[in-house]
Amino acid sequence: MPLSANNPDRKSWLHVDKNSDFPIQNIPFGVFLTRDDIITIGTRIGDTAIDLGALHQLGYFDGIALTDDIFLQDTLNDFIADGRKTWRAVRNRIAEIFDAKNDALKNNTKHKETILFRLDEIEMQLPAQIGDYTDFYSSIEHATNIGTMFRGKDNALMPNWLHVPVGYHGRSSSIIPSGIPVHRPQGQTLPPNSDTPVFGPSKRVDFELEMAFITTDANDLGEPIPVEEAEEYIFGLVLFNDWSARDIQKWEYVPLGPFLSKNFASSISPWIVTLDALEPFRVKSPKPLKPQLPYLQYQGKKSFDINLEVAIQPTGAKETVVSKSNFKYMYWNMSQQLAHHTINGCPINSGDMMGSGTLSGKTPDSYGSMIELTWAGKKPVKLSNGTERNFINDNDTVIMRGHCEKDGTRIGFGEVSTKLLPVYKKK
Amino acid sequence: MPLSANNPDRKSWLHVDKNSDFPIQNIPFGVFLTRDDIITIGTRIGDTAIDLGALHQLGYFDGIALTDDIFLQDTLNDFIADGRKTWRAVRNRIAEIFDAKNDALKNNTKHKETILFRLDEIEMQLPAQIGDYTDFYSSIEHATNIGTMFRGKDNALMPNWLHVPVGYHGRSSSIIPSGIPVHRPQGQTLPPNSDTPVFGPSKRVDFELEMAFITTDANDLGEPIPVEEAEEYIFGLVLFNDWSARDIQKWEYVPLGPFLSKNFASSISPWIVTLDALEPFRVKSPKPLKPQLPYLQYQGKKSFDINLEVAIQPTGAKETVVSKSNFKYMYWNMSQQLAHHTINGCPINSGDMMGSGTLSGKTPDSYGSMIELTWAGKKPVKLSNGTERNFINDNDTVIMRGHCEKDGTRIGFGEVSTKLLPVYKKK
Repeated sequence: MPLSANNPDRKSWLHVDKNSDFPIQNIPFGVFLTRDDIITIGTRIGDTAIDLGALHQLGYFDGIALTDDIFLQDTLNDFIADGRKTWRAVRNRIAEIFDAKNDALKNNTKHKETILFRLDEIEMQLPAQIGDYTDFYSSIEHATNIGTMFRGKDNALMPNWLHVPVGYHGRSSSIIPSGIPVHRPQGQTLPPNSDTPVFGPSKRVDFELEMAFITTDANDLGEPIPVEEAEEYIFGLVLFNDWSARDIQKWEYVPLGPFLSKNFASSISPWIVTLDALEPFRVKSPKPLKPQLPYLQYQGKKSFDINLEVAIQPTGAKETVVSKSNFKYMYWNMSQQLAHHTINGCPINSGDMMGSGTLSGKTPDSYGSMIELTWAGKKPVKLSNGTERNFINDNDTVIMRGHCEKDGTRIGFGEVSTKLLPVYKKK
Repeated sequence: MPLSANNPDRKSWLHVDKNSDFPIQNIPFGVFLTRDDIITIGTRIGDTAIDLGALHQLGYFDGIALTDDIFLQDTLNDFIADGRKTWRAVRNRIAEIFDAKNDALKNNTKHKETILFRLDEIEMQLPAQIGDYTDFYSSIEHATNIGTMFRGKDNALMPNWLHVPVGYHGRSSSIIPSGIPVHRPQGQTLPPNSDTPVFGPSKRVDFELEMAFITTDANDLGEPIPVEEAEEYIFGLVLFNDWSARDIQKWEYVPLGPFLSKNFASSISPWIVTLDALEPFRVKSPKPLKPQLPYLQYQGKKSFDINLEVAIQPTGAKETVVSKSNFKYMYWNMSQQLAHHTINGCPINSGDMMGSGTLSGKTPDSYGSMIELTWAGKKPVKLSNGTERNFINDNDTVIMRGHCEKDGTRIGFGEVSTKLLPVYKKK
């Protein structure tokens, strides 16, 4: 099936701002609550949200093999499980319906009243029920920076890192969409020069600038996914803030990895941008520094050129952009991550999420976490309101954005924006 | 609500063998496929499986607040979400229905035909949709043994271990019920005296003797569960074989913990034995070797005296019991694990599963894994058919069993039995 939805010359009859992340070439998928308190699956063009459940009921998807209730659900899991052929057919049809040359819906005021929403009329939800969530650790700059701070320069990059796309399991239950605030976590930390931990609020709450991909049903227990087939099972991507409590992490993480330092919250942007929409932005991955085992070897461009930024916004102040990075810096690409994850036969299901790991670049202004930007709190970041930050303060909002741009087409992710509240108090 | 289901003097009109794990005082919950290919929630007395969906439709649960379809489901999640009061009411009612003094169902042949099944007429399923699975590491003997082998005697028990109930996230998608075979995983391992990994089948496939508890909906994002309330949110326990590939684990696990060495499969026994049924078998946990932070301090008996054993059965041969251990050896109990898991506000949902970690005792014959029993392959285990094992061979079946016994009452878990197949070949 051709990717006609990606036609760069197409315009929509819906208004799209010049710098919008959501031109008619994007067509992401999400779940929202409408003004009538109905939950539905939708897409977005410019600043208009589109109810795909209503569109389907009115017959606009006739001819595409879809169950009647495929969009009348509170998660995208079933639609994602339908597979790439269906995703493409639906994206192509949406592009046609909203093409400036197509009057059918444009001139049907009654249909438009049912189908179209202003963004302030809807409330975005988690787009999928995430059965399993894995976080990789695939930026060599981030792994080197963190390794240096946690274990010293000589042990920074572990001996396995250039051979293994290192990853670990995360917690699905605390993944939340943009806009949901997070409480500062409490826990155990080890004070300097002490061998006895203390209990209290984390003093080092940090963000991690990541992206994450959402998969479809891929394999049975026991069956590996070859690296060259891996992209067939990737539905799309979101922005991902992997909240981290560095002081809790340092004390707890040996030998079984981070746990409470991560699972208090993980925030994602609510619109899943399909891998298809990102097709024009393919680039090569960084050149391997050591030979990689055959099951990780691939041909062609498997990375994507996605500009990323992080801003901190204190209460009542303007935001300050504190980092600019790019998804393409990732040393191990998504195809390698998925091939590695399944080489032992681990089953991947529709709605599973895989984080990239913090996406740091080579230069200090491209580091993807406060612990790297401030070098463990030694070089505070200056904000535009005159204050400084070593880590994130109570009531700060952390905002991450991402977009691709090429030949006049911009495809973006919107944002993931999360306010850090003080420690939880029992009501 | 009193726990009348636990009355030790009660007999059932259903036949129960003297050494059965499932007397009328047990009443576990599971999900099975019936001879009519219908999936239902059920319980078991002796060797008779009982269809609770059918029992409910016939009015036997009248007076208990239950939705009509609560047992006509393919997972226990909704029933578990109903909470302890409902679990108790249902268990008590089942005890009454099958009490030797109650003729109502006993004398109703037509009803019995719908409700009762021989074990060979049903196929046990995974009892719950496990949203998140966490594995703890709460046996001091196991942590010390593994630490000694992986990091040397001086670094065996990490400095955090006596303060933190160490745990990490596992993979839900590869949790399978007893009876489903598992393929030997492939992956990267580092040969001795080499700095370059090789790819191939794991040569060190191991079991880990664990138990796991299943939770109900417990808390909102941000809200900790106090240690003294934790048991309110524990529905019940299962036997748990946390399959492990030791050679893959050794190469991959630093710094973010075990990943592919674990997520190829994790096997559980299909009947969830309720915490209520285990009430008579409470014992004290081991005395803390160091003071514990207040959020981990509790009163009373929070451990359970559950005898455990592991057997290996080669194809066509008799099984050999290779380890005998006990759930009560666990240094950090379930209440402490759950309080720790949520101290940062991590949400716990109905159907989540928490593993104990390998349950090793003090003596070598009570070690809960082959790597400990054979001390990393140096002292092979002898089987009754004359062969030896350092780890698990292709086509071996690993069987774990567990039961409590006190004052003539025995409450057991049945078994989790899993065959290890050779490496997966594409059909």
